[in-house]
Amino acid sequence: MEKKIIVTIGRQFGSGGRIVGKKLAEQLGIAYYDKELINLASRESGICGEFFEKADEKTSGSLFKSWTMGFSMNSAIFQSNDYLSNESLFQIQSDVIRKVASQGSCVLVGRCADYILRDNPDCVSVFVSASWQDRIRRAMEYDEKLTEKDAVECLKKADKSRASYYNYYTDKVWGAAESYDLCINSSLYGIDRTIDFVREFICTEKKGE
Amino acid sequence: MEKKIIVTIGRQFGSGGRIVGKKLAEQLGIAYYDKELINLASRESGICGEFFEKADEKTSGSLFKSWTMGFSMNSAIFQSNDYLSNESLFQIQSDVIRKVASQGSCVLVGRCADYILRDNPDCVSVFVSASWQDRIRRAMEYDEKLTEKDAVECLKKADKSRASYYNYYTDKVWGAAESYDLCINSSLYGIDRTIDFVREFICTEKKGE
Repeated sequence: MEKKIIVTIGRQFGSGGRIVGKKLAEQLGIAYYDKELINLASRESGICGEFFEKADEKTSGSLFKSWTMGFSMNSAIFQSNDYLSNESLFQIQSDVIRKVASQGSCVLVGRCADYILRDNPDCVSVFVSASWQDRIRRAMEYDEKLTEKDAVECLKKADKSRASYYNYYTDKVWGAAESYDLCINSSLYGIDRTIDFVREFICTEKKGE
Repeated sequence: MEKKIIVTIGRQFGSGGRIVGKKLAEQLGIAYYDKELINLASRESGICGEFFEKADEKTSGSLFKSWTMGFSMNSAIFQSNDYLSNESLFQIQSDVIRKVASQGSCVLVGRCADYILRDNPDCVSVFVSASWQDRIRRAMEYDEKLTEKDAVECLKKADKSRASYYNYYTDKVWGAAESYDLCINSSLYGIDRTIDFVREFICTEKKGE
């Protein structure tokens, strides 16, 4: 039987972590989930995707008035006219992450997937960082209106938001080496060779296998 | 011409980072520096090794009364009857690190070598972490008198001390993924396969080479 591979990817904004994950999934011929998790969580719960998008990788404790999409009512958490917290949305998304990981090999980007799947023996967690120079360049390519100064602000804000989300929902620290199996600076060798290394790392057999 | 390889290894206490560095140097047939840096710094400066040992990877601002070893007087920093700060000892050790790195390929463990050599294009920085379970086991093997509870305390204290030293002397954060090129959890695949992976990573040609 072929080895099941579950890879979670945490990443600094502008590190190229998303593209590392996407290409890795393509090369391995396995499923890839990033924003796709929002659509799945919405379909599973019957809660409008907009709510998940608003709460995506954010911690703000604000409550969203819930409303149905009409086509699905299979979430026990959802009650029409109730208030739905970010914590509930996180729980729904966590269930979706566990479900897709149980179905087969996949790459999951962000959303605390490494923590949610911490007891899954097939899971290998990766974090991608990059130099400020590369991150600023990517941010300015992503939004051409950004000045370099704006880009730095934007990157700091994004890191802060991701860290806050991760640190709130897990008992680990976002971006700390000890929170992941492998952390890699994509600026050292570039995206393609970074993917090669990550692929080789995750395809290694674990101790005792 | 053969590629010059400078590898710096940061590590959690009990992670096996030291043995990863030592075996890596053996396999590559290159020099290895850990505590050896203390002897070299002592020889270079004429300051008793005891002072370097006391200040080793510690930040305490306490001053040590300096005294000569008599056999060497080639350090401009050293002045008989002066007081010598930990900062001065750090500077001497930094000069030694830069010197050995300029002389040839080597593996350097701890002592902020990644920061000291940040502008050295041959340098690749690695950080080794491990599971609590493995770290506790190693601490208890290292000192057989330790109970499991003592070992946990000892590990926490060692991490705190290393973090404090690193964060004081560098503008980076000890153990943060973004401070290193590669961070690896030695518990996932065990020490030998961790070494294989680090060796492969550091032997890759950098972008544009």
